Amino acid sequence: MPLIHRMAVVGVGLIGGSLARVLREKNGVEEIVGIGRTEKNLRKAVELGVIDSYCQDPREGVKGADLVFLATPVCSITRIVADIAPFLSPGCIVTDGGSVKGMIVSACESLMPEGTFFVGAHPIAGTEKSGVDASFSTLYSDKRCIITPTPETDKDALEKVVNMWTVAGSQVVLMDAEKHDRIVAAISHLPHMVAYSLVNAVGGYDRYDENILKYSAGGFRDFTRIASSDPVMWRDIALLNRDAILETMDLYIECFSQLRALVEKEDGPGLEDFFARSKQSRDAII
Amino acid sequence: MPLIHRMAVVGVGLIGGSLARVLREKNGVEEIVGIGRTEKNLRKAVELGVIDSYCQDPREGVKGADLVFLATPVCSITRIVADIAPFLSPGCIVTDGGSVKGMIVSACESLMPEGTFFVGAHPIAGTEKSGVDASFSTLYSDKRCIITPTPETDKDALEKVVNMWTVAGSQVVLMDAEKHDRIVAAISHLPHMVAYSLVNAVGGYDRYDENILKYSAGGFRDFTRIASSDPVMWRDIALLNRDAILETMDLYIECFSQLRALVEKEDGPGLEDFFARSKQSRDAII
Repeated sequence: MPLIHRMAVVGVGLIGGSLARVLREKNGVEEIVGIGRTEKNLRKAVELGVIDSYCQDPREGVKGADLVFLATPVCSITRIVADIAPFLSPGCIVTDGGSVKGMIVSACESLMPEGTFFVGAHPIAGTEKSGVDASFSTLYSDKRCIITPTPETDKDALEKVVNMWTVAGSQVVLMDAEKHDRIVAAISHLPHMVAYSLVNAVGGYDRYDENILKYSAGGFRDFTRIASSDPVMWRDIALLNRDAILETMDLYIECFSQLRALVEKEDGPGLEDFFARSKQSRDAII
Repeated sequence: MPLIHRMAVVGVGLIGGSLARVLREKNGVEEIVGIGRTEKNLRKAVELGVIDSYCQDPREGVKGADLVFLATPVCSITRIVADIAPFLSPGCIVTDGGSVKGMIVSACESLMPEGTFFVGAHPIAGTEKSGVDASFSTLYSDKRCIITPTPETDKDALEKVVNMWTVAGSQVVLMDAEKHDRIVAAISHLPHMVAYSLVNAVGGYDRYDENILKYSAGGFRDFTRIASSDPVMWRDIALLNRDAILETMDLYIECFSQLRALVEKEDGPGLEDFFARSKQSRDAII
């Protein structure tokens, strides 16, 4: 018996499409309804066999589903839950893939009608591409998926979401939502803040009458690749995970200022030690 | 008639080996002597046909050379010039490939005996690898090579170095050494300071009893790749290009603090604009 009978995937792109593909491949689901705004993308998803049918109205699309997966931009998750809540079937589990959890989980939990359940999750996987064309069934294979239950979380609903991600090939980690947000702030949100600032700093360097970015070589391009990410998505993440991001930004400013002081003092042994510590940490995670 | 009769390459690794290979391929040189400390590497370079012969004593190796190319770590260039200066043949041109120019060019110029010439250069090219095994003749193809003449630079010597890099396939740009150092500080040295600091900040995040780097995914690893660079080399660069690096670090702190203020104020439009400006600059250099 499949884990899920009727699954509604809201947002059939890289994240939603890849989960649909792998659950289908592993016989984890009987029927998949895709929900989204762009009919062309939804039609494509049917053609590719990623979903069975589609619906552009989320309220209509979630009817009869025993599991709803929200794979939309992080800022829209709470709004969509508010929208679909009255139309959920009894026992339905709603779960998401958003990269911020604290604010989303507490807001969504409070929106769920009696007898329906919300479970927050964040699969740490992705590529540069988007859209259902970019989705593939091994996206989550051996990647961590952090699931963030609260004291309110229904045990059976949690178990089902854990099983779903395990079937998808993920290594499931259960974690407090606040801890999740602080860790993701450090390993993902902070690097984006750092990269966006670096490009703006170098792009704004106006000592010479020319754009010095033209002298940049491959290293700079690789390093700043993440500064090409979607500005609207990152605006939303910065708003939703403000406190944790501020904490890591302050920690970063402290480290960067230490390094600045070493450069200013021409402290050779201190500089070597600073760089060597960093290299050691970096090399340990390759 | 080849551009160079007898060329001495001090440091037969990626940089020195690749220049030797391409000049030989283009018949730009008659004879190449490799100079280095590690006999095994030099023997390998002879076997690979990168050099004709080798010598472990730089003073001996430069005898009779009409061009000496210094492809050693940036901190050793001035010392080597001081060492070889009394042994140079009349008319000999000494040039380098170091990534810092101001201090090196002025020190080396003053060390050159009457009738011999120093020309500073910096080919903006490289890979993660090192050693003569990693060298290849197209390393400099279509890459910029910045040459930094001073009012003292001999015109014929400059022309010969420009021609050498043109034969190697580079796009030669002439630039004041100070301007070079400031531009390279912004596009290369600053990103390294930023990346080393990021890894130390995240590695030092101690709110939880575990190393949170283990949750990092591919994005973090790619972004911090340059923090695996050689700590000794970067110590030397930070010492040699101190003023320009401090200037760009201050510019960076200003940008990063602007972003921190936007996050703190929850300024949605300001955040979107900050990220969009960065994305636009970044996308323009792909």
